[in-house]
Amino acid sequence: MSAPQENAGPIWHPFTQHGLGEPTPLVTHAEGAILHTADGARVVDAISSWWVTTHGHCHPPIVAAIREQAARLDQLIFAGWTHEPAERLATGLVAMVGRELGAPSALPYVFFSDSGSTAVEVALKMALGYWGNREEPRHRLLVLEHSYHGDTIGAMSVGARGVFNAAYAPLLFDVGTIPFPAPGAEQAALDALEHACATQAPAAFIVEPLVLGSGGMLFYPAAVLREMHAICARHGVLFIADEVMTGWGRTGGTPRGRENAGAFAPGMRSDAARAQPEGALEAGEPPSGLLACSQAAITPDILCLAKGLTGGAIPLAVTMASAAVYDAHYSTDRAKTFFHSSSYTANPIACAAAVANLGVWRDEPVTQRIATLAARQEAGRAMLAQVPGVENARTCGTILALDYKVDGAGYLAGIGPRLLAHFRQAGLLIRPLGNTAYLMPPYCIEEADLARCHDALAEAARLS
Amino acid sequence: MSAPQENAGPIWHPFTQHGLGEPTPLVTHAEGAILHTADGARVVDAISSWWVTTHGHCHPPIVAAIREQAARLDQLIFAGWTHEPAERLATGLVAMVGRELGAPSALPYVFFSDSGSTAVEVALKMALGYWGNREEPRHRLLVLEHSYHGDTIGAMSVGARGVFNAAYAPLLFDVGTIPFPAPGAEQAALDALEHACATQAPAAFIVEPLVLGSGGMLFYPAAVLREMHAICARHGVLFIADEVMTGWGRTGGTPRGRENAGAFAPGMRSDAARAQPEGALEAGEPPSGLLACSQAAITPDILCLAKGLTGGAIPLAVTMASAAVYDAHYSTDRAKTFFHSSSYTANPIACAAAVANLGVWRDEPVTQRIATLAARQEAGRAMLAQVPGVENARTCGTILALDYKVDGAGYLAGIGPRLLAHFRQAGLLIRPLGNTAYLMPPYCIEEADLARCHDALAEAARLS
Repeated sequence: MSAPQENAGPIWHPFTQHGLGEPTPLVTHAEGAILHTADGARVVDAISSWWVTTHGHCHPPIVAAIREQAARLDQLIFAGWTHEPAERLATGLVAMVGRELGAPSALPYVFFSDSGSTAVEVALKMALGYWGNREEPRHRLLVLEHSYHGDTIGAMSVGARGVFNAAYAPLLFDVGTIPFPAPGAEQAALDALEHACATQAPAAFIVEPLVLGSGGMLFYPAAVLREMHAICARHGVLFIADEVMTGWGRTGGTPRGRENAGAFAPGMRSDAARAQPEGALEAGEPPSGLLACSQAAITPDILCLAKGLTGGAIPLAVTMASAAVYDAHYSTDRAKTFFHSSSYTANPIACAAAVANLGVWRDEPVTQRIATLAARQEAGRAMLAQVPGVENARTCGTILALDYKVDGAGYLAGIGPRLLAHFRQAGLLIRPLGNTAYLMPPYCIEEADLARCHDALAEAARLS
Repeated sequence: MSAPQENAGPIWHPFTQHGLGEPTPLVTHAEGAILHTADGARVVDAISSWWVTTHGHCHPPIVAAIREQAARLDQLIFAGWTHEPAERLATGLVAMVGRELGAPSALPYVFFSDSGSTAVEVALKMALGYWGNREEPRHRLLVLEHSYHGDTIGAMSVGARGVFNAAYAPLLFDVGTIPFPAPGAEQAALDALEHACATQAPAAFIVEPLVLGSGGMLFYPAAVLREMHAICARHGVLFIADEVMTGWGRTGGTPRGRENAGAFAPGMRSDAARAQPEGALEAGEPPSGLLACSQAAITPDILCLAKGLTGGAIPLAVTMASAAVYDAHYSTDRAKTFFHSSSYTANPIACAAAVANLGVWRDEPVTQRIATLAARQEAGRAMLAQVPGVENARTCGTILALDYKVDGAGYLAGIGPRLLAHFRQAGLLIRPLGNTAYLMPPYCIEEADLARCHDALAEAARLS
């Protein structure tokens, strides 16, 4: 099929079948949770422009930092040279993540890259380097069913096999897949992980904590996450937390349960299972929600962060590592170097935006905004749970998701394009995953705009 | 070995063995080809901060574009939505690359990503998608010996195996390697490519045109590149040009030979072999040097660009595709979609910087600067060729490279750290590849600063 001239602009959009001729609105400017299009429409960005925008578009302190840094030092090789924005960012991140996890130097080292996918590739390479440099080489990787970790070959390899990557399957490496801990199947998943750790000598287990994003906004309890971590720790298997989506407050805002999570017990509810890191916060104080891991009171060996790292303004990613992972590479032997980079690693402009983002978390009531949004989402969920045609209405912190009852689910479910068009007509940027729709708005979204989103989700049930 | 506290800052630098305790200067600001450090030193950035900076650091029109865009629209999902900086950039790139290659719509489609590595991953996935969607699945990839295409799993897989990636070898996919066309071995390389195309049903051949960068700044003639392209075309094998390093003028500035390249002939000199795209330029007019491919008068099926795309200010990459590659994905069948993205794909701020960079190429005498720099580098090469201890002094456009005579070459050659320290002492950012040193400066470098670089390269021969 050849591209008809009238639809043949030069841009090849991502995850877009241009042959369907769907409209592509042109956005001219944005502020807060609102996008303005060239034809004058006001659109609510209800998914934070693919899960990145946290405090709102063009948040003034972040814009100011970008503008200031661009004129001072745009770019610098980061092998053997350094700059202030990266130094400030790394120091700030280590402290902030340490506070969140209740252990000041939990993850004391920061490696920079450009995207969530590359943060994951770095994590996998660190894990292999850890084992190789200790002269106990391991390369088997364990993953969770339905996972998504990015679109590069390594990141796809540790993600679920399916329509996203079927065409590239011959290039993907083999992994060990642990069943998703769906309700009622939690213990089976934990048993499978225990067995794989005991028998496959894996280098690492990589997981999206609490929420599997592109896999369909699948949630699982903090107690299960905590137990998965304990199993890996028992077997000396590195635990990689991919918080590219879950990080920066997305899963926060639910009051922390006073009960201690302890071990996972079948039938335990997710809320009650949220753990209290020892001494980290007063009992009952809402967690900042910076990381999903903190809700399970676990410290991963390797942590991937991106998206909200710059408040959603500009691409940047980090992979944070434990002292053990770093020390395995630290040597006078140059062959033990961690061999990874891209030319723009730790771009000063992006780092300056991220430093400003840390300032926003410090100086503005971000935690309170998250708690308010989470409460409104929970109210929306209660309403949507009553709508015929809606299934599994669920929230995790600021994220609300639901499934529409259809024949034939999955990413390519026929309802997807109809939903997309419905939301576009309503002036909402909501991008379904097949028959699953979700809201993951910037924390500044106005109450009325969020209510419009909830209403549109309810109305869309008519389409199923 | 545990990290001693005094050297244990939170940053894990790329391609850096922290255990060696080498100094890491802090750069505070930059302009043109000059970096200023916190201790007041003026450092000549003789490698364009890892090959990215073309017009100089903080080039005013690019800085202005970043500052303006950051306040207007920082980020937008690029699946199903679009924005003006991306539209202008894609249109401008298609036109500019078309002019350069002498065929207005040579590569009419632009796919965005974040780094050179991801541009390569996208290219590989496009190649597999092309074959898969035509229902003639192919996944074998051919590569050139000594190649480097990036550090993600896919990009490493199509690069040379060695110290850079030995630790990750179990995750890499297998490829077919064509011998490097070293002087005297050109025909053997071409024969090997012909044989592999005829017998292995490869999906694509990926190549760094004219210059293999991290492999040791290895140059090969345009006529060989032209013949490699012809072989692939004859067998219907997609030709992927990775111009992440060579693009944006690096190989330009050498007067185009009046002789037509025609087929490669053993003994032919590189200069004479440079081809004249039909009707593209007046005979004898210097090529713009935008692409190395144009020196061989070839149009690849897929082209990777990054680094100088934004003038070196901010990360951005594109993979440009032929109509045939795009059309293979263009369908009403959503399963034929090109499934790739990262959240920040086509970040508006980065796109605005790249649009400004196209303006610099249009409005400033960039081609003339490149020709001047290339001539000065050639004069430096003539001087350095006379220095005892220096071997293979060579230039390709604006790039000058040489090898120091040592026992035991390779990336980890013992001379590397001594060279690095020597250049640092001399106030020069020059980062050797083992016993190979090279200069790849911004085009605005002052004559006196370039002369200092040439002198320092000569003095360094004492260290070998």
